[in-house]
This record gives sequence, structure tokens and C-alpha cells, in this order.
Amino acid sequence: MKIIPVILSGGAGTRLWPVSRKAYPKPFMQLADGKTLAELTFDRALDIATEGEVVTVTSRDYYFLCKDIYKKNKKCDIDKQSFLLEPIGRNTAPAIALAALQVQKAHGDDAIMIVMPSDHLIKNIETFNKTVYQAAELAAKGYLTTFGIFPTAPETGYGYIKAGQRLNDHASVIEQFVEKPSLEVAEAYVSSGEYSWNSGMFAFQVGSLIEAMQKTANEVMTQAKACFDSTDTNNSQVEFELKQFMQLPDISIDYAVMEKADKRAVVDSRFDWNDIGSWNAMANLSDSDEAGNRIEGKAITVDSKNCYIRAGDRLVAVVGVNDLMVVDTTDAVLIAHKDKSQGVKDVVQFLKAKDHEAAVFHKTVHRPWGSYTILEDEDDCKVKRLIVKPGQVLSLQLHHKRSEHWTVVSGTAKVRVGDDEFLLEANKSVYIPVETLHRLENPTDTDIALIEVQCGSYFGEDDIERFEDIYGRIDDKQANT
Amino acid sequence: MKIIPVILSGGAGTRLWPVSRKAYPKPFMQLADGKTLAELTFDRALDIATEGEVVTVTSRDYYFLCKDIYKKNKKCDIDKQSFLLEPIGRNTAPAIALAALQVQKAHGDDAIMIVMPSDHLIKNIETFNKTVYQAAELAAKGYLTTFGIFPTAPETGYGYIKAGQRLNDHASVIEQFVEKPSLEVAEAYVSSGEYSWNSGMFAFQVGSLIEAMQKTANEVMTQAKACFDSTDTNNSQVEFELKQFMQLPDISIDYAVMEKADKRAVVDSRFDWNDIGSWNAMANLSDSDEAGNRIEGKAITVDSKNCYIRAGDRLVAVVGVNDLMVVDTTDAVLIAHKDKSQGVKDVVQFLKAKDHEAAVFHKTVHRPWGSYTILEDEDDCKVKRLIVKPGQVLSLQLHHKRSEHWTVVSGTAKVRVGDDEFLLEANKSVYIPVETLHRLENPTDTDIALIEVQCGSYFGEDDIERFEDIYGRIDDKQANT
Repeated sequence: MKIIPVILSGGAGTRLWPVSRKAYPKPFMQLADGKTLAELTFDRALDIATEGEVVTVTSRDYYFLCKDIYKKNKKCDIDKQSFLLEPIGRNTAPAIALAALQVQKAHGDDAIMIVMPSDHLIKNIETFNKTVYQAAELAAKGYLTTFGIFPTAPETGYGYIKAGQRLNDHASVIEQFVEKPSLEVAEAYVSSGEYSWNSGMFAFQVGSLIEAMQKTANEVMTQAKACFDSTDTNNSQVEFELKQFMQLPDISIDYAVMEKADKRAVVDSRFDWNDIGSWNAMANLSDSDEAGNRIEGKAITVDSKNCYIRAGDRLVAVVGVNDLMVVDTTDAVLIAHKDKSQGVKDVVQFLKAKDHEAAVFHKTVHRPWGSYTILEDEDDCKVKRLIVKPGQVLSLQLHHKRSEHWTVVSGTAKVRVGDDEFLLEANKSVYIPVETLHRLENPTDTDIALIEVQCGSYFGEDDIERFEDIYGRIDDKQANT
Repeated sequence: MKIIPVILSGGAGTRLWPVSRKAYPKPFMQLADGKTLAELTFDRALDIATEGEVVTVTSRDYYFLCKDIYKKNKKCDIDKQSFLLEPIGRNTAPAIALAALQVQKAHGDDAIMIVMPSDHLIKNIETFNKTVYQAAELAAKGYLTTFGIFPTAPETGYGYIKAGQRLNDHASVIEQFVEKPSLEVAEAYVSSGEYSWNSGMFAFQVGSLIEAMQKTANEVMTQAKACFDSTDTNNSQVEFELKQFMQLPDISIDYAVMEKADKRAVVDSRFDWNDIGSWNAMANLSDSDEAGNRIEGKAITVDSKNCYIRAGDRLVAVVGVNDLMVVDTTDAVLIAHKDKSQGVKDVVQFLKAKDHEAAVFHKTVHRPWGSYTILEDEDDCKVKRLIVKPGQVLSLQLHHKRSEHWTVVSGTAKVRVGDDEFLLEANKSVYIPVETLHRLENPTDTDIALIEVQCGSYFGEDDIERFEDIYGRIDDKQANT
């Protein structure tokens, strides 16, 4: 049996603002142990991938991030991984349909897809793996199989699955999908023993899924095929065209297929599962002190109880408060009552409405070649710290409204200024006048750290005219520097 | 009648951390209108100064800050102002004794000192001025006169003054000073109509004060005279020597003199007075919105009431919380319950015990020549933004463990590197190798802004070897850069 995991890696996670943002959402957030959900999800996926291949459906914004993260796994052959890049987010049914066509093309109708969102936290990997194989076996028999999480509490934030007739000692047919219930209803569900949480993870035999989709959501499958057939899908990086992609209906896999299909199963899932849907859920991952406070980073608590504090570089002090969540980042701090953590998304909505940067970007912005952090942004100058990864090359570019002063503080850079090209070691600097072609490159195998001082009248990221770019960003105004 | 105001400008204001810190305490904090208490106090003082002279007792740390602030007042002749610089803080009796000797020397025994702390907020200046003249008249008659603030609430944080026999329609003799009372006692005081708040402001005829002090606190006056006589007091900047100064008892003017002297008066004070003793008091200076939230800076409130938010450069978002005070600075954020604002000093004590920078310094550090802000402080580099004020000169110096790259981003600097001296305009940069003599100077009449990138292995402020310094800091390891 061929098992091809499919990771869905998009999503905003607005309830985890200010750490999760559009440019760096929930799957890429650091957990207390320094790992990210994306990393843990890939590790889990590669572990069950019989062909060493994982298909990731994501957007171009996260492509380089994902790739860098996947490379950390020593068992990963990066050339074997497929990335389907959506030009815009379009819900789960289109993403899964396109992944199915890709897997069908490479591995045929009998291959089993294990669909997993990249922002779930799963502990107890042995149980998880065992459950995956149980689900895969059901999928191989043609069942559209979902993972029903054993409900440990009457959660009102999840959908539920009602189990019908038992298929074997670890699975049932699905009788019904139900939407997020009220607390009373949720309590009844949990005590009945017939319901489980809908995890959003699935096992599908590719042929069965495509066939079912043609019956229940023909428009999705037809448009997905049209989109797939008009795209070059022979590379590991498959980019769909926006206009074609827009034809795909914005619809979830539950609604498009699972709620309507004939042959459906739910596999009993007793591994530890957490979708980290709020700061409360994140808080519960940390250990608490005697006063019930959970602290990550530098914090001082005085006369305070049951607080969760996630401090960044700065010091957080709480005095005489209870049940608060404090999340500090370089440009924004959130203070929310524990029981009101859902209101965080209102903040993000407000910021989006105001077109505020803090809804989208962090002060540290990730790029294919590394990252930059804005240290200062004033009328007279902008100062950045750039990290350029080994072997990476920034685009050949020039600016019309600013000059730049670069000082290498560690590593050795290869620099082009005008027609000159030379190596620049640590503690050396170079001046790039306005309107002058330049390029920064890391020809070594260690990171370069560089301080860039921009002088001029305008420092917007759109004042970059690109002439060559190894990441294909010449025409892309969004992907800067 | 000669009136010489005496400003006592020291004090930590630890209950206003993280904005008020040892290196930049309460008198220098910006209020909502951008002014500082020190500025408002000096304006008030100069307004009543018959000789255009105000005596300020402060420490060397705050001398340049005070001077810069005083110069903002267009009526101020800075050469007429006297500064008595204490090497360490030593309570109010020594400070007032030394000020009295200075005023006596310059203006004789009949001059009237109006003593005022620099960290009080007073509105209704007309009433204040009228009250000062009433107090001065009593002082001229030999009364040691205090300003008794009409008590608008049963405050338990202030000392009270019990009035005795009426002297005239606006003053009484003092019957008794009482310590901070319980709430019950305070309520009784307020309803009796016989008590007022002890403001810590005084009017003294110099001769009478010195005479009274000799009787009630002879040790203070004897040591103050010894200290004064052994110091060069002919400059506007009088610096006392530490060893001599340490002989002065650490005692308050209330305890040393006011509680024991014979001829004491309290003048009825009905101007608006606020000692801004906590964030609560600061909060009350801002207007509140419909939900009772008081906001300075960028903040978003969702489902929150009666909060005070003082945001700096960063965005503060509060969700589902009530009665909180949130104070955000570049390197620390405080979240305290309104009713627990006194606990803020516990945070500062904890930080001091741990020798934490956030107890003392801000990211922006003020220097005689301007200020610097730390933009980045990593193992491989430190980046600062320097502002050099017109006409100012940094010391001629060198570093043993770091080189520096300077880029001027606005203004024109005069730079010495080794034996070369030249002008450096905006958008020009210069390299200062390790172990190389250098100096930065502003010969123009506009500020210079400069980005300094330090490269090396150690960036401590103690790696500065000074050869010349116009501010007399050659031997002073504390006063850096």
C-alpha cells in the first residue's frame, strides 16, 4: 500500500495574534520547545510516507518557509517533496481535489492520501501511526475515512461526528456530521459515547475520493481537473494560475464530500490532539508555577495568579492580576482575559480594516534568501539587520529614492555594486548610491549578518527595481528585497 | 522682598516604573501633553522668582537634563540659575540646608526661599501664585511656613497638618503634623475641616530657617556648613564632595525642623495639586472614553472597561479586561490592576536585586551632548542611533574591543579619526578602527542623527578610554560615551 501524506499548510490563526500573522501564521509559530507546528507535522507525515514523499498544499508566501523547515528533517529528501502553490486561499475541497489529482498522476488510483492540516499538535505518535494505518486500511477498501478524536471535554468550538454501525473494533460507519454545538448539546454528545470530534484529518484512496467528488461536488472536481491540466505539474513546485484557480468553488471538504458521500468511516482516534485554536490552548502546553502562572520568556509576577505570559525580547511585569494572557512581540502586545480569548480575532479584524501592518507582518520578515528585521524606521533613515543564508542570492536591483550603507557584522558576503564585484568580510562596509545596480550574495556555508542603513526620502519596499532574481520575483511586487 | 525658589529634583518614582527609572525618573517623564513635571515646575518657579534665579538641588545624573529643560523657558537666563549637585541622595533636610546657605550667601538672611519638589503637578497657577505670596509674607515675619492642601478626599498616602489658631483669613499656626493615617482616621480628618495635606512645599526666610535648624537639628546645619565651606560655590554648578556630603544625616525637613520648631504656619492652599504618586494618579490626567478607558498612544480595546493604557511605539491590544493599567516602553511592559498600583515598586525592587538594566536605564539614554538609543544589541554587533545637539562635542576617545561604522543620516558632523579631521554630511559614512582616537562634534545649529554600527567582541559602555571631555567626564566611569 502506497501512503502519500498531504499537508494543508495555509490558514491565518487570527486567534493567535500577535504571534500568528498573515505573513507568518500559526504553523510557523515557535512553541515553547522552539519547534513549529509545521515542523512537527512534516516529521509526522514523513514518518508514515511509504514513498518518502509528502505533498504540501500551501501558498507561494509560505513555500520557502515550508521548504526550509522540511530540510531540518534529516530523513527528508527535499527533491522528492511536492508543493502545490495556491495563488489565493480557497478552502479545503479545492486543495484536496488538486492534491488527489497530483497523487493520482504520480502513484495511480490505489494510493492512499492521508490529509493533515499543518497546524495541529499531536502527541503520542505511536498511537497516531497505528491509527493512520487503521484508517489507511479502511480507505483502501473504498471508505472515505475521517479521524474521530475521542472527546475529553464538551468543546463547543469543534464539529462532531456521530458514529453508526461498527465496522471493526476501531472504526464505525459515519451516521452524521454535526456543526459546533451548544454547551448543553456538547455535554449530551460526550456522555452518549457515540460522538467524536471532527479533526479535519482524512484518509482517502485517491480513486475513491475522485469518484465520490464527481458525484457530490462535480463542479469542484471539473474545475480542479481544468486547473491541473492547464498547469505544468512536472516540477516539485506546482504553481496554479490565479484566473484558472478562481474558478474553483470556495467550499470545505466536509460540505462538498464528507456530508454527502455514501461510503464513509470514522476511525477511533485516541492520540493526544490539539488544534491550538486559541491562546488558552497554547497556554496549556506550558507548565505552571505554584500560583498557576505559565511563563515563557522574561516575566515578573507580583501578587498574580493563573496568568499566561509569552514574553519576547522585552520584560513583562504583571502586578495584582489574575487569569490574564499576555503575549508580547516586537511591535505589539496583547492582554486578554482567559475566558475572552476568542475576542482576539476582533483585534485582527479591526487592524485589517485599518490596513495596519501589525495584522500582516512582523518586524522580522522571512524571505527566500533569509530574513530581515527592521531596527529603526524613521523619516530620515531605515535600519535593517539582514540574515543571508548559505548559498543564497538577493536579486540584482536598484533603488530610485534611497542609498544604502551595508556593514557586514558576521560572515563573508559577495557584493556587486555597479560593475564591481568583490568579497566583503565582517567589519567591512560598502556604500550603494541611489540608482546603482547592486546584489548581495552568500557564497559561503555560514550565515551572513549585515546591518543596512538606508538614507533618503522614501524607504517603502516597493522602491525596488529588480533585474535578475533566482526566486522568480521579477514581476512580483509583493515579494520584496 | 526677594523670592528665590528652590527646586528639589531627585527621587526615583519607582511606583511609576517602567517609565520612571533611576536614570530618567518621574520629573522627566512625559505627560500626555508632551511636557515634563520638571519643565512645569521650573516654569512655575521662574514665574515667582523676583531675581530671575532658581536654585535647583539635584544630582549630577540629572544636571544636564535639568539645564536642557530649563532652557526651553524663554524667560530663563540660564547663567543666573544655580545647581547644587548632590553626589548621593540624602533626604530633604540636607538639601534644604545647603540651598539655604547658598541663598544666604547670594541674597542675605531676609531672602525668602520657596521650596518645591520637581515632581508635583499643579494646575490653577493664579491661585498658586497668590498662595505663594501669602506664604512668603508669613515667612518674612519669621514663620516656617508650609502649604496645606485642601483635602478633597480621605487620602491615606499623604501626611496631614492640623491647623491651630488662625493667623489671618488664609493661614493658621500649625498645631501638629500627623503621619499617613488609616482610612477611618483620614475620613475623620477631612470631615473635621481642621486638617490639610502636607504637600512638601515650604516658604522660609533664610535667616529664620537657619536659626531654627540650629536649634532643632544642629548636626544637619553644622555638617551642611562644613560641606558648603569646603566647596567651591562660586559657579552656577556647585558639586559637593562625596566624603564630606556623607557626613550629613539622612533626615527629612519635616522630622528635622518642622515637627519641632516654634514658629510654624500653614497657608490654606486651594490650587489643584497632585503628586502623581502612582499610575492611578497619572491615569486620572487623561480623558476617558465612553467605556471609561483612558488611552495614550496606539491601543485597541475590545470588550474592556476602565483601563489605562500608555502605549509607546508599539501597539497595545486589550481584550475582555477591566480595571487594568498597561504601560508599555521599548524594553518592558507593565500590566497592573488599578487597585494594586503600589505593587509596582515590588517589581522595581526585584529588578534592582537582580541588577537588571530595566530598573535603571531606558533604551534611550540621555547624555550631556544629546542622547543615544540602542537599536540592536547582539553578540556580533551593537547598533545605536545617536542624536548630537547643536554645539555639542563627544569626548575624544578610543575603544579597545570594537570598531565603529558611522553613517550620518541627517545634519552635518565634524569628525576626527586618528589625526584627520573632516566634515561628514548626511548619507556619508566613516570607519573607526579599533584602538583609534576619534571624536564626534556638531558644529552646526541643527541636530545630527547618526547610526553607529559597532563590530567586535565586546560592546560594554566601559570600553571607552577618554582623553578630552568638555563635560568633565574623564575620570567618571559612570558617564559614558
